[in-house]
Amino acid sequence: MIPVEEALSRILSAVSPTGAETVALSEGWGRVLARPVAARLTQPPADVSAMDGYALRAADATLGARLRVIGAAPAGHPFAGSVGPGEAVRIFTGGAVPPGADAILLQEDALAEGDAVRVNEAARHGRHIRRAGLDFAAGDEVVPAGRRLTARDVGLAAAANHPWLTVHRRPRVAVLATGDEIALPGDPIPAGGIVSSNAHALAGLIRAAGGEPLVLPIAPDDRDAIAAAGEEAARCDLIVTTGGASVGEHDLVQAALGPKGFALDFWKIAMRPGKPLIWGALRGTPLLGLPGNPVSAIVCGVLFLVPALRRLSGLPARAVATRAAVLGAPMAANDRRQDYVRATLSAGAAGVPVATPFAVQDSSMLATLARADALLVRAPRAPAAEIGDAVEVLELLPLGA
Amino acid sequence: MIPVEEALSRILSAVSPTGAETVALSEGWGRVLARPVAARLTQPPADVSAMDGYALRAADATLGARLRVIGAAPAGHPFAGSVGPGEAVRIFTGGAVPPGADAILLQEDALAEGDAVRVNEAARHGRHIRRAGLDFAAGDEVVPAGRRLTARDVGLAAAANHPWLTVHRRPRVAVLATGDEIALPGDPIPAGGIVSSNAHALAGLIRAAGGEPLVLPIAPDDRDAIAAAGEEAARCDLIVTTGGASVGEHDLVQAALGPKGFALDFWKIAMRPGKPLIWGALRGTPLLGLPGNPVSAIVCGVLFLVPALRRLSGLPARAVATRAAVLGAPMAANDRRQDYVRATLSAGAAGVPVATPFAVQDSSMLATLARADALLVRAPRAPAAEIGDAVEVLELLPLGA
Repeated sequence: MIPVEEALSRILSAVSPTGAETVALSEGWGRVLARPVAARLTQPPADVSAMDGYALRAADATLGARLRVIGAAPAGHPFAGSVGPGEAVRIFTGGAVPPGADAILLQEDALAEGDAVRVNEAARHGRHIRRAGLDFAAGDEVVPAGRRLTARDVGLAAAANHPWLTVHRRPRVAVLATGDEIALPGDPIPAGGIVSSNAHALAGLIRAAGGEPLVLPIAPDDRDAIAAAGEEAARCDLIVTTGGASVGEHDLVQAALGPKGFALDFWKIAMRPGKPLIWGALRGTPLLGLPGNPVSAIVCGVLFLVPALRRLSGLPARAVATRAAVLGAPMAANDRRQDYVRATLSAGAAGVPVATPFAVQDSSMLATLARADALLVRAPRAPAAEIGDAVEVLELLPLGA
Repeated sequence: MIPVEEALSRILSAVSPTGAETVALSEGWGRVLARPVAARLTQPPADVSAMDGYALRAADATLGARLRVIGAAPAGHPFAGSVGPGEAVRIFTGGAVPPGADAILLQEDALAEGDAVRVNEAARHGRHIRRAGLDFAAGDEVVPAGRRLTARDVGLAAAANHPWLTVHRRPRVAVLATGDEIALPGDPIPAGGIVSSNAHALAGLIRAAGGEPLVLPIAPDDRDAIAAAGEEAARCDLIVTTGGASVGEHDLVQAALGPKGFALDFWKIAMRPGKPLIWGALRGTPLLGLPGNPVSAIVCGVLFLVPALRRLSGLPARAVATRAAVLGAPMAANDRRQDYVRATLSAGAAGVPVATPFAVQDSSMLATLARADALLVRAPRAPAAEIGDAVEVLELLPLGA
């Protein structure tokens, strides 16, 4: 059994980002940028007014002065002339400050009098003028590569005049559920069997992490069937199997795929739930073999599949973030396995949430997992803990998990 | 000017969830459940083994006993007979406990001897047996309505034998950017004009919140053009306009849509950035008029559009969550408008992040907004604050914003 950190480190070092593809800006949200976006123009392109009012010379805009209004400069419609002594140009937010003007008289500090304007409050040189390039200048890198694009990034790339973006291809992930005992929802259930829940839960997790799931038909506990599915799956960027990873006689994934070129890296992790976890490569395609138990499969998916997918997507190689919480119920000492305890979170003092484990933690209880807000991380050999003790939790909802 | 809370309350009370549609379970992730999912079966359907080992009678499984192995019960392949005195059945995790057996002898506590097994550690009655219904029983509501489906929920709905789900239709949101001065990225830019960034940033925000954006062609500052676009937009669940909402002479949205049946609710909020914000309805279709300024548009989008979309999607009517942080730089006293200050977050003591505002907060600086981790919420009339003071922040990345 290897520690969780080592397992993750081996997984992350074995995957690398997918290649790039061109997408329209309008398809860029949520994708990971493969090439930085550099501004193709300067914003604002010229000095512009930050307010509605009048562009004029500060020297003229003394209290009570009356200036001749010689034109207007709405946003997008620059005034063609220039502002001379005793003159003003009506201006609106975003409108270009005409040559000659060096101050903005706010609308609320002005009184329109026919084709003139009366100054009710002196204007200050440079005030309410946004200088050219205040936001960004042509050539500035405005969005760095390796970032999942937010709505703001998309807006910024648009403002920087990019109709296209270069992003990492979405990783394609084959999901292969194995087992004689499982049937798809709505299909006939074999005697003593159960409904397959892992493949579609994992497909959701894959989508949430930015991947494209390819859900293969369920493979029976049969070497040839699993081997054939493996051949198909090897065209993907990552293969995820579920089932067949325990130590019983019915562990077929390794037996079926070994003769097809599967190279095992490790297959046991010192964690709970989820000890039997296969990691290796099928002729160069990384393969993650998750336990068949739905709770174990999802917990291992969160811990190992999500970081692997993020890395494949072009994001930095790192573990899923945890946050500080305080314990809401006492806990017994832990054994040698790192424990991921299903817990609820509630509001705590000073913004630190209270994490309360469910009383029964049986790894077959999917309904309990679905009701959990977080996994409470218990280190190997952690001593008994009391209410109020500091703990680390991994929030599930932000992962879509 | 009305307070932010009142504006949001009016917006949320004016929108209601979309109707339901049927989707395949495999399309359910991220959708909001419109009808609860009740289990169609009991899980586990019978008493099953929690471990690999031997099913037997606890009375027989004394230290050193030798029991005859009469068959096997892998998951999905129940043993057809029953277990009598002196007998055992090889069993695997998930395998049905055969009639007659009442205990599981763990594999590691057993020694296989031909067609018999030697007991190396006494087995206890009921131990390592998962009782029928431990996870859920037929009829149990396993996923409640009004919840955005996680990967776990999808797995649970699958396990509960649902190939289909009833979810709220994705809200369709028309996005109408207006202004003579704006051009789409890559298109010719008018003299003095800028590249339009709001529509596609807002489309990203809409996708992130579970809606379907319909980006309309940019409308010039012309009543007829805006009125025609409004007619088209009114087929959607929500209309979002951007631009034309300030107090200048060029505010055409109200002027253009008024004659078409637009009923205004309010149009000024005591906040910064983003004071001019229109809320009303165009012949029954709610309309949110965002400022043309990209920073204001996105901040108002986060504060008002995201909660409105969540409500339309079937989620509870509530504000976007904030969390506690401590201030990383001193701040001056605030005026009468609620301020949303662009800030970075860094790790702080005891799990509470440190929020540090950018030094320059000009509302035209989209690049600064894109680099922000959070909006620091400053209440109206908030007094000056010092490093280490408690503040509330609204994290942007979790919103995809």
